[in-house]
Amino acid sequence: VSIGKSELEHIKSLRTKKGRREQGRFLAEGVRLLEEAVRHRFPPQAVYFSEATLSDRGRRVVAGLGSIGALLSPVPARQLASMADTTTPQGLVAVFESPCDKFEELWCRSYRRLLWCESISDPGNLGTLVRSALAFEFDMAVVSGESAEVYSPKVVRASAGAVFGLPIARASVPEVLAVSRRIPLRIIAAAVSGETVPLRLTRKRDQGPLLLAIGSEAEGLPSEVTARADMRVRVPHSRRVDSLNAAVAGSILMNHLYRFSRN
Amino acid sequence: VSIGKSELEHIKSLRTKKGRREQGRFLAEGVRLLEEAVRHRFPPQAVYFSEATLSDRGRRVVAGLGSIGALLSPVPARQLASMADTTTPQGLVAVFESPCDKFEELWCRSYRRLLWCESISDPGNLGTLVRSALAFEFDMAVVSGESAEVYSPKVVRASAGAVFGLPIARASVPEVLAVSRRIPLRIIAAAVSGETVPLRLTRKRDQGPLLLAIGSEAEGLPSEVTARADMRVRVPHSRRVDSLNAAVAGSILMNHLYRFSRN
Repeated sequence: VSIGKSELEHIKSLRTKKGRREQGRFLAEGVRLLEEAVRHRFPPQAVYFSEATLSDRGRRVVAGLGSIGALLSPVPARQLASMADTTTPQGLVAVFESPCDKFEELWCRSYRRLLWCESISDPGNLGTLVRSALAFEFDMAVVSGESAEVYSPKVVRASAGAVFGLPIARASVPEVLAVSRRIPLRIIAAAVSGETVPLRLTRKRDQGPLLLAIGSEAEGLPSEVTARADMRVRVPHSRRVDSLNAAVAGSILMNHLYRFSRN
Repeated sequence: VSIGKSELEHIKSLRTKKGRREQGRFLAEGVRLLEEAVRHRFPPQAVYFSEATLSDRGRRVVAGLGSIGALLSPVPARQLASMADTTTPQGLVAVFESPCDKFEELWCRSYRRLLWCESISDPGNLGTLVRSALAFEFDMAVVSGESAEVYSPKVVRASAGAVFGLPIARASVPEVLAVSRRIPLRIIAAAVSGETVPLRLTRKRDQGPLLLAIGSEAEGLPSEVTARADMRVRVPHSRRVDSLNAAVAGSILMNHLYRFSRN
């Protein structure tokens, strides 16, 4: 069994940003990542797998993906290797339709905590923030500006599959501000400098859904975001470093809101 | 002005692990990283810079490195590009002697908080943990097992230069356990499963220096470490993810100890 050359080229082009945009699809591979797709019931269109290289755990993932609706497509090991992004795809690669990324279509009235990633350009940091957002019961994320592409292989991997569990919108800064005014959302801005609010203050102001905004390490948040924020927070740290890693700072703030905000 | 071919080859080989081990030296480049070397008074042996590509800020860094004892060596832009690890060295590359990495030589009686990175193989995670350790006033780090190489370019970059500010030892797991028994250190082990201690408990046991042990995401800490630990702690999170990123979990625990332990 094998797939045709044109289908193979089509899949391989999903390793590029252009291919993903044109086809509205993305790739994920390996046992752990695809277990998360099963866990979050995020079905791929198709799973390509090589019987010869699949472990028992891999076989269970393929069956699980089949049970949530994926087309199962056995291929030779060499075809699988040619479509994979990593050198160890562990015998399986899946193709997913890129989900809706419109803020207002993804928004639900029951949502209480949202993460805003503004110009988080490092794929590892963006993926880590998405992973922490799911871990700390944030309901949705929105990415803007120069942020990395959410469904690129590096972000998917760094998220440890959390991209399959969290609704993620893409919007411009003015769009996010407009939507957050309409809903309305309280904006909590992570500030690297300027006014500092002790984190525990957030306990007292726990009404309505909140939007935690994290900016780039180099630039921080744009001034229009900081100006519109209902609160600016910062993680206190020694002056021996200029700043924390953006994913660390965001995760500490999310952890704090998870523990103390009773939204 | 330019440097000889053999000196150039010598420097270029510092981009490899083998070269760094053989020469006992490492490279760092770019304005931000080298500003941290100045801040922490960690002098390079030599700074190679290209006048043509240096910004004003870069020129100040070169002067700063000179003032703490570095030999300043102007080179043509093309030589500089050939020795750099990144495509944007911003006109300066510095060569450092690898510092002492013996646990007991680095240890000082005034130290209160140490970070132990056991088999943190991802360079981004290791660098981020070192950065957070410096941010949250840890006095020293020790790395063991399959951890990434501390003075490799990726770890140095991910640390945002914190490797210049924090003493970092390299030791085996049995060595760390032996030293921590001699000093003695209270071991706090980050556990991904098993017994969970509410983090605030650590407030009550604040006597003597502590060693926070972080293990790999895939494997956790070795059982001999967990067994020897005085306390096992875990960052509570939703069951929608299996675990947190190791650097995030470690940073949240360090932030907690920074805020609540009065060591």
